[in-house]
Amino acid sequence: MGMSITGKNHVAGRPSAEGNHAFHATDPRTGVRLDPAFVQATQTEVAGACHAARMAFEVERRRSGADRARLLDAIATRIEALGETLIERATAETGLPGARLQGERGRTTGQLRMFAALLRDGSWVDARIDRAQPERSPVPRPDLRRMLVGIGPVAVFGASNFPLAFSVAGGDTASALAAGCPVVCKAHPAHPGTSELVATAIAEAIAETGFHPGMFSLLHGIEPDVSLELVCHPAIQAVGFTGSLRAGRALYDAASARPQPIPVFAEMGSTNPVFVLPGALAERADTIATGLVSSVTLGSGQFCTNPGLVFGIAGTGLDRFAAAAGQAVSASPALTMLHDGIKAAYASGISRWTATTGVRTLGQGASTDPASATVAQAAMLMADARTFIGNPHLHEEIFGPVSLVVEAEDRETLLDAARRLEGNLTATVHGTPDDLARFADLVALLETRVGRLIFNGYPTGVEVCPAMTHGGPWPATTDARSTSVGTAAIFRFARPVTWQGFPEDRLPPELRDANPLGIRRLIDGVSTTDPV
Amino acid sequence: MGMSITGKNHVAGRPSAEGNHAFHATDPRTGVRLDPAFVQATQTEVAGACHAARMAFEVERRRSGADRARLLDAIATRIEALGETLIERATAETGLPGARLQGERGRTTGQLRMFAALLRDGSWVDARIDRAQPERSPVPRPDLRRMLVGIGPVAVFGASNFPLAFSVAGGDTASALAAGCPVVCKAHPAHPGTSELVATAIAEAIAETGFHPGMFSLLHGIEPDVSLELVCHPAIQAVGFTGSLRAGRALYDAASARPQPIPVFAEMGSTNPVFVLPGALAERADTIATGLVSSVTLGSGQFCTNPGLVFGIAGTGLDRFAAAAGQAVSASPALTMLHDGIKAAYASGISRWTATTGVRTLGQGASTDPASATVAQAAMLMADARTFIGNPHLHEEIFGPVSLVVEAEDRETLLDAARRLEGNLTATVHGTPDDLARFADLVALLETRVGRLIFNGYPTGVEVCPAMTHGGPWPATTDARSTSVGTAAIFRFARPVTWQGFPEDRLPPELRDANPLGIRRLIDGVSTTDPV
Repeated sequence: MGMSITGKNHVAGRPSAEGNHAFHATDPRTGVRLDPAFVQATQTEVAGACHAARMAFEVERRRSGADRARLLDAIATRIEALGETLIERATAETGLPGARLQGERGRTTGQLRMFAALLRDGSWVDARIDRAQPERSPVPRPDLRRMLVGIGPVAVFGASNFPLAFSVAGGDTASALAAGCPVVCKAHPAHPGTSELVATAIAEAIAETGFHPGMFSLLHGIEPDVSLELVCHPAIQAVGFTGSLRAGRALYDAASARPQPIPVFAEMGSTNPVFVLPGALAERADTIATGLVSSVTLGSGQFCTNPGLVFGIAGTGLDRFAAAAGQAVSASPALTMLHDGIKAAYASGISRWTATTGVRTLGQGASTDPASATVAQAAMLMADARTFIGNPHLHEEIFGPVSLVVEAEDRETLLDAARRLEGNLTATVHGTPDDLARFADLVALLETRVGRLIFNGYPTGVEVCPAMTHGGPWPATTDARSTSVGTAAIFRFARPVTWQGFPEDRLPPELRDANPLGIRRLIDGVSTTDPV
Repeated sequence: MGMSITGKNHVAGRPSAEGNHAFHATDPRTGVRLDPAFVQATQTEVAGACHAARMAFEVERRRSGADRARLLDAIATRIEALGETLIERATAETGLPGARLQGERGRTTGQLRMFAALLRDGSWVDARIDRAQPERSPVPRPDLRRMLVGIGPVAVFGASNFPLAFSVAGGDTASALAAGCPVVCKAHPAHPGTSELVATAIAEAIAETGFHPGMFSLLHGIEPDVSLELVCHPAIQAVGFTGSLRAGRALYDAASARPQPIPVFAEMGSTNPVFVLPGALAERADTIATGLVSSVTLGSGQFCTNPGLVFGIAGTGLDRFAAAAGQAVSASPALTMLHDGIKAAYASGISRWTATTGVRTLGQGASTDPASATVAQAAMLMADARTFIGNPHLHEEIFGPVSLVVEAEDRETLLDAARRLEGNLTATVHGTPDDLARFADLVALLETRVGRLIFNGYPTGVEVCPAMTHGGPWPATTDARSTSVGTAAIFRFARPVTWQGFPEDRLPPELRDANPLGIRRLIDGVSTTDPV
């Protein structure tokens, strides 16, 4: 396709470039500046996008789930129609291999279609009907009917590490649109061209399916002001974000300080601790070490679920594990990171860890060019539990292909170290059935710290399905009650409304006696798909 | 019963009075100080209650729903066993009539048993199972199983206007305990003796059912410090509150500024606008006016759902309505309010409204003693829409038995006034079927502003049932996505956890293949009560 990239913002379907502050993307593989220049959104453009979103919400909020499903499907189709243009631009802007980006595109369109299917099923609205009891004494019970509706316009922030699946048409946008919420998306400045291509696909899908153009806008920005203006605009009713703790906290603080505070769903990554228990070490230390290093280096270590800490009890099993992990990581090629800021943060994190007394290096991957602004060396480090416990900076995530193996002298020390863990997206346990029985208290403790517990697997690879939880207690996210992956992500952007005593023909179809949509409902407390 | 009130805090089942700051409750009917003195909790006592709650959570979080149901039922039984002692003390501390308090006690024990039934049913955990697909290409799908679990210790703040149903063992406590969360309750200082009696009932129920005593603590306090210390304690993971916007915002701000921010579910009241449409005015202006004044004066106007604003279009129908409302309110007796602070705020609110140019008085209730610190006069006021729109202080709630009738010159002005409304718990529409058709845009607008829409009824009287939404957009609450009444209130205190690849015998019963609890689950996206 000869699709051209304009460098403009997309405000409710219209290209707009009123500002005078422009920036370029850079190819992280070469350091070459990519054309065109992108024009940072002005305050007027931010406000224009938010006003249009508010208007779209008022006009479109009563649209049927089937209509919204058509919109999501159309977006998926239009993204596919971008073909190699999209993959090539994304590769140039992120350095991620084409095969990975093709997979990510499949995940992105898969998510859109998953939410379309959820809407066609329709039962997600959690409809509840409590019928009138006019004879009840001392007071009659009125007829009460309740369902979930969209919360209003949502601000979505694209993530650098998933230029498709967690960016412009990623999980946040798909779940917000599914809930009936217009989206104002702030593109990640590291892949603005990819963002614009996807925004064009969304705008075309909106036009094709006859929705109000305010359902989607894309804003560019490289300074924090644009993000803060967006989050503080009174039309915005919720925020979806994936990125760093620092940026997520800043958005959360701004949203909480508004005259009307709004919920922020920020997924801010974590250390994803892995516990390799004694039986597992005795049985298969080498295999687990190799698998772990693959997980650590996958995608240049740039996954939110990257395992950054590994815990084991001292002994020959852990020695073998450490040796195998060191050997495996030494075979890692040089890894290109997403942009120079991420590489710089990674390098300084590694320096901080390796400069800590008691931390030693088990192995390091190759480096083609130590002076490169974007090429990183994978690393496996090791320390004893006393060092880990005494140095809180070792508990903080380093975003990139590194993991620290923590050696505990005994079971109690392992548990003590585990108690120091903050909230995480995931925790992983490698063990035998006997290990699980002996370490039941560890597993119970980990349940209170994470959104997902993995047994004999690796945390990278987040399945998109109803049972997924991609979330967890602070600082993994700002709201442990949410997931940003899977069908339950829609609940972030929905709120309940109850209709009391309304005539049939004024109720949404989901709540009418006849149940014309055939959805599952709770009628007088009993789950059924029957009519009233 | 000869149950004595000690004036002490209850920290994890133990009476505690380490502080040196004491206060008394007052009988609002007489101004008489009630014994004993209550000792404000110290920082150490707050911390002790929070630590005990954390320990109880760790110990008890894997308890079955059936066990938690037994605890809730036992609390209900113990509250009933307090008999007249509880009603008499509550009457003395609040001035509310015995019959009202007996009704409220029934609502309180009913709520506890409703959550017990929800736990016995068990399906509330929203269990989801996505089975492994080992043959899937390019990568196999792991086995993923997810359910809701308790979020951790919850801080609950007793409300002044519901000394039983929204206080120590009210909806917040019942739903938190149901979710498996220990509760640290801050008693409202206007009814500390009622609070202590109920706390004793809870402590006895905890002992009887063999739960950890840290499952519940009661703290007294009359200064904001106690509340802020509680909300800022690291063990606390969520907050439930019913009260004023000012206090709710202060708790929200404190919780959001924590190193680990936590969710606050504050229900802060609202103006609960009522729209009386032309067809309804033509048919039954008098009846609606009488019903409305009953709703306005019920419980001395001290309900969160008290209708504070009434909108109609100018004409003979509205004139008749205004005359009837004025006449009805003039028949209102003098009304005793909960305490002198509420009366003072009511009186100053009335003065502010009546001093506004364009606001006139339609009628006022009786007043036995204009100088009384707690006795209030009900009032119906009126203004035109221009006055309403031009005076934002007329949009703010006055807590008490007053309502402002806003006269719009035409349909457009009515809609314009409606657009000025902030978030509300409820909105009410009185109309004919023809009115609903002609004012569909008004109803659609109101849907975006409230948690509950009422047709041809009155907002007071909040049914406790699955379909209830007692919540709404800011400033009605801090989180429009929640309800504080009905079974869905439990979701405020629960978060999802996913188990990936775990053996059957290490999974919670809710997620095992055989479905031993017989709950409804989503298996591979399909709702069923069958085993896997």
